Amino acid sequence: MSAPCFCCNAGEAPAKTTKNSALPQELQDEFSDPNHPANLICELCRLFYDNNWVTGTGGGISIRDVDGKNPNLVYIAPSGVQKERIQPWEMFLVELPEEKILRTPNEIPKELTKSYKYKPSACTPLFMSCYSMRDAGACIHTHSQSAVMMTLLLEGKTEFEISHIEQIKALPKLKFNESTKKIEKIGSMEYYDKLVIPIIENTPHEEDLTDSLQEAIRNYPGTSAVLVRRHGIYVWGETVWKAKVYNEAIDYLLELAVKMTLAKVPLSQETLQS
Amino acid sequence: MSAPCFCCNAGEAPAKTTKNSALPQELQDEFSDPNHPANLICELCRLFYDNNWVTGTGGGISIRDVDGKNPNLVYIAPSGVQKERIQPWEMFLVELPEEKILRTPNEIPKELTKSYKYKPSACTPLFMSCYSMRDAGACIHTHSQSAVMMTLLLEGKTEFEISHIEQIKALPKLKFNESTKKIEKIGSMEYYDKLVIPIIENTPHEEDLTDSLQEAIRNYPGTSAVLVRRHGIYVWGETVWKAKVYNEAIDYLLELAVKMTLAKVPLSQETLQS
Amino acid sequence: MSAPCFCCNAGEAPAKTTKNSALPQELQDEFSDPNHPANLICELCRLFYDNNWVTGTGGGISIRDVDGKNPNLVYIAPSGVQKERIQPWEMFLVELPEEKILRTPNEIPKELTKSYKYKPSACTPLFMSCYSMRDAGACIHTHSQSAVMMTLLLEGKTEFEISHIEQIKALPKLKFNESTKKIEKIGSMEYYDKLVIPIIENTPHEEDLTDSLQEAIRNYPGTSAVLVRRHGIYVWGETVWKAKVYNEAIDYLLELAVKMTLAKVPLSQETLQS
Amino acid sequence: MSAPCFCCNAGEAPAKTTKNSALPQELQDEFSDPNHPANLICELCRLFYDNNWVTGTGGGISIRDVDGKNPNLVYIAPSGVQKERIQPWEMFLVELPEEKILRTPNEIPKELTKSYKYKPSACTPLFMSCYSMRDAGACIHTHSQSAVMMTLLLEGKTEFEISHIEQIKALPKLKFNESTKKIEKIGSMEYYDKLVIPIIENTPHEEDLTDSLQEAIRNYPGTSAVLVRRHGIYVWGETVWKAKVYNEAIDYLLELAVKMTLAKVPLSQETLQS
Repeated sequence: MSAPCFCCNAGEAPAKTTKNSALPQELQDEFSDPNHPANLICELCRLFYDNNWVTGTGGGISIRDVDGKNPNLVYIAPSGVQKERIQPWEMFLVELPEEKILRTPNEIPKELTKSYKYKPSACTPLFMSCYSMRDAGACIHTHSQSAVMMTLLLEGKTEFEISHIEQIKALPKLKFNESTKKIEKIGSMEYYDKLVIPIIENTPHEEDLTDSLQEAIRNYPGTSAVLVRRHGIYVWGETVWKAKVYNEAIDYLLELAVKMTLAKVPLSQETLQS
Repeated sequence: MSAPCFCCNAGEAPAKTTKNSALPQELQDEFSDPNHPANLICELCRLFYDNNWVTGTGGGISIRDVDGKNPNLVYIAPSGVQKERIQPWEMFLVELPEEKILRTPNEIPKELTKSYKYKPSACTPLFMSCYSMRDAGACIHTHSQSAVMMTLLLEGKTEFEISHIEQIKALPKLKFNESTKKIEKIGSMEYYDKLVIPIIENTPHEEDLTDSLQEAIRNYPGTSAVLVRRHGIYVWGETVWKAKVYNEAIDYLLELAVKMTLAKVPLSQETLQS
Repeated sequence: MSAPCFCCNAGEAPAKTTKNSALPQELQDEFSDPNHPANLICELCRLFYDNNWVTGTGGGISIRDVDGKNPNLVYIAPSGVQKERIQPWEMFLVELPEEKILRTPNEIPKELTKSYKYKPSACTPLFMSCYSMRDAGACIHTHSQSAVMMTLLLEGKTEFEISHIEQIKALPKLKFNESTKKIEKIGSMEYYDKLVIPIIENTPHEEDLTDSLQEAIRNYPGTSAVLVRRHGIYVWGETVWKAKVYNEAIDYLLELAVKMTLAKVPLSQETLQS
Repeated sequence: MSAPCFCCNAGEAPAKTTKNSALPQELQDEFSDPNHPANLICELCRLFYDNNWVTGTGGGISIRDVDGKNPNLVYIAPSGVQKERIQPWEMFLVELPEEKILRTPNEIPKELTKSYKYKPSACTPLFMSCYSMRDAGACIHTHSQSAVMMTLLLEGKTEFEISHIEQIKALPKLKFNESTKKIEKIGSMEYYDKLVIPIIENTPHEEDLTDSLQEAIRNYPGTSAVLVRRHGIYVWGETVWKAKVYNEAIDYLLELAVKMTLAKVPLSQETLQS
């Protein structure tokens, strides 16, 4: 429950007063748009922190500027920092497909940063896989406890399956398009459809997940997410908002699935019948 | 727990400064009232989102303007959008009893909307059933995990029953009035009364729930809610605030009932005695 | 987890701008003090709502103006209203020991209220018992699910007992003072002390709890709280802040005790040894 | 879930308007920096309260001014007060290594304080142990229910162990440096490393924990935390932000470990194999 915050009003846009006079004017102007990808990364990281998804510097997010002038620009949160406290000028800016680094927070005036050597999120090669293999507009990585618990309860299994839960309808139905040679959204999943999310094994170094993540993406053309056992989940979507919605819907289903498993309620109808 | 937000004060009304200069002046004036149904839908959707009831675009709400000049006007949230981020001008406005559409967000200046073809909530025929069959002032639909879990724990049963819990007293006692031919509130439920909420089976398409929802409303003249298995709950009330209170009280009872069931505590006294 | 709200600052007092121009000037002046009991009731009800303690109009709170000119003045929240949305002018004001009503929200200009016949909280006789029998400065009543669950797990028992948990030290050690003939605080409970809270049976009407609550207060001179089975808890303290702290500490212990019970961890050392 | 607070903006620093005109000008100036240790203690206590870690006056925090002119200055929250409501001028200021008290809240104008005799946190000798034995920059003490539950589930065991969970990588790898004779951070823990946190038994008086806490710190050169059975946890780090991140990561692991234990999932790989 949450008592209403009377300082927030319906229909009100944030009164933008960024204290960044130390920032170059160019960046001040750039970040004055609340919907700028760098601002959205900050906003969503605060939200994800509140959900216990990115505490302890865990997790990450990357947004491709699909609606901007150059849809090949990708913004990436830095590695190893408190996700709920990052600022728009702390992002890495990379251009696809060569992944050329256009801007790093290491060039920002020291007084605005944590004054140490920033590195892009360790998930970067995984995010890039989602961009290159799926044309994603954003990719979210969380350490959600529901995701981790579900992979523990499915020890030895390589798929999470659930069906016949209404929330499944928030997820996209994807199909390989023979003419474009791309995976494309052809609608939404139906109530009776079975959601299948592959589970890959964790590796000591996050970048070493790349091969198995790419393999999972290849083997599961219908998925919008990959679970990593004992680690968390990767979710992507056509835009940042779609990725956010898919991630919320999948986390809702994982939270419910953990409860169902502990209460010995089958997760899908075949299981029910068998 | 929630540390006090010192920017919110007791006794303070929200300082309304809607940034909607792109809106027609008429709508700006209309939405300047914080208690306007369209503003309340926005406020309550943010609250419901915080409760994990409408994440991933799930759930919905509709308010009838019972205290306005025309109590036949009904406001309905749009379908498939992030509920916590809707704006007052994104509502559908419909007039009862013909359900004539008076206004849609598709007429709103594009820069204020998500620039796509809005559709009214998929729950619309269900909301309309509550208005026509029960004279409701508002109808709330959530994907509450307590509601879904309870229907899973009651697999094969068509009723959720609970008694002898104080919170039951927040719910209305309803009775068919022979003279007015209407279901009317004759008081509040008592502590020892048994709350019975019908459970209907989910269908692939939300609108296909209409027949079974109407049948449940007809068969359970004492209920203010209908549970939908593997899906969520519909709750209505005489006004938006009554609907909100009933929904809170029922969700509290469902949350408690799930815990009771898992701890093998009987939900009602007969069960206890049998 | 909760991302920092950058609009709230350490060391900042709330900027008080109550929109109550329709209120008599006298009341406007009275409520301009953020620590006025009527303002504190509003602030704490919002906090309790966030904790799921007073949703669905449940629960209540009353504060005696122990630091004011007349420490016999008692403020009581109204009955049956949404606790997180009450305003300072919606309180009942009563003078002890005759419980003479000095002010009611029914005298307030209609546009500031919900325009219906207000009644003082149904818990009023229970609150009054705490004032008269214990000289309390405030009394809190919640429908906390941990309180309700614990009474269900202790079906047939008339006491909740817990020991050897650090949080017990937040609670007062009380003793009957032969010279003043009053129960007085002589310090804080120790880690190895056993906290004992009596459990009384619920009754159909809240006021009918008065006798058994008074009996429990009489029989348990060391308690600062009474649990009501299938209902919730009453907690009181020397001041509103003490009552708040005791209620938080007890709820923490009840939440932990429910988890311990379900995990089959004994609640107190004797139990452990037996 | 948490709906976005539109009054908070990405990239915006808090507009500092401390209402403390009764404070000496010197302190007003000192506390005008939002990153002052006294302000950070207030901010973090509000955050910890929201996490149910310091409710009921429980827990505490101390920060050493490692980046200030005198890195021997230590700020300590007062004892027995509501942690979410403390103000920067309510801190004790102590200088290492003699622990000379330089400032106490008892010298502050009465109208700004709770007007009673303040005492430094009962954890002070424990905090001091972390400063002297580990050169810590901050020390956090919480009554986290996950910490308490885990010590209860490990009754009779003196260590909490967990391995092969990604979040472990947020914790530091520590090693004794022969040349400096200090425990120093040599990197981060790896995914396959086993996190071992010693558990000490609680004592009636918090200061009596000092010996066993010091012994645990000595015996576990690799640890950044000590669990106290039936009580909570102490966590420290090189700076306040490191301490915050370690505490979040450890609490995440404890929360997960409680769930794993109840679901009979082994906490570490040896356990798994045995």
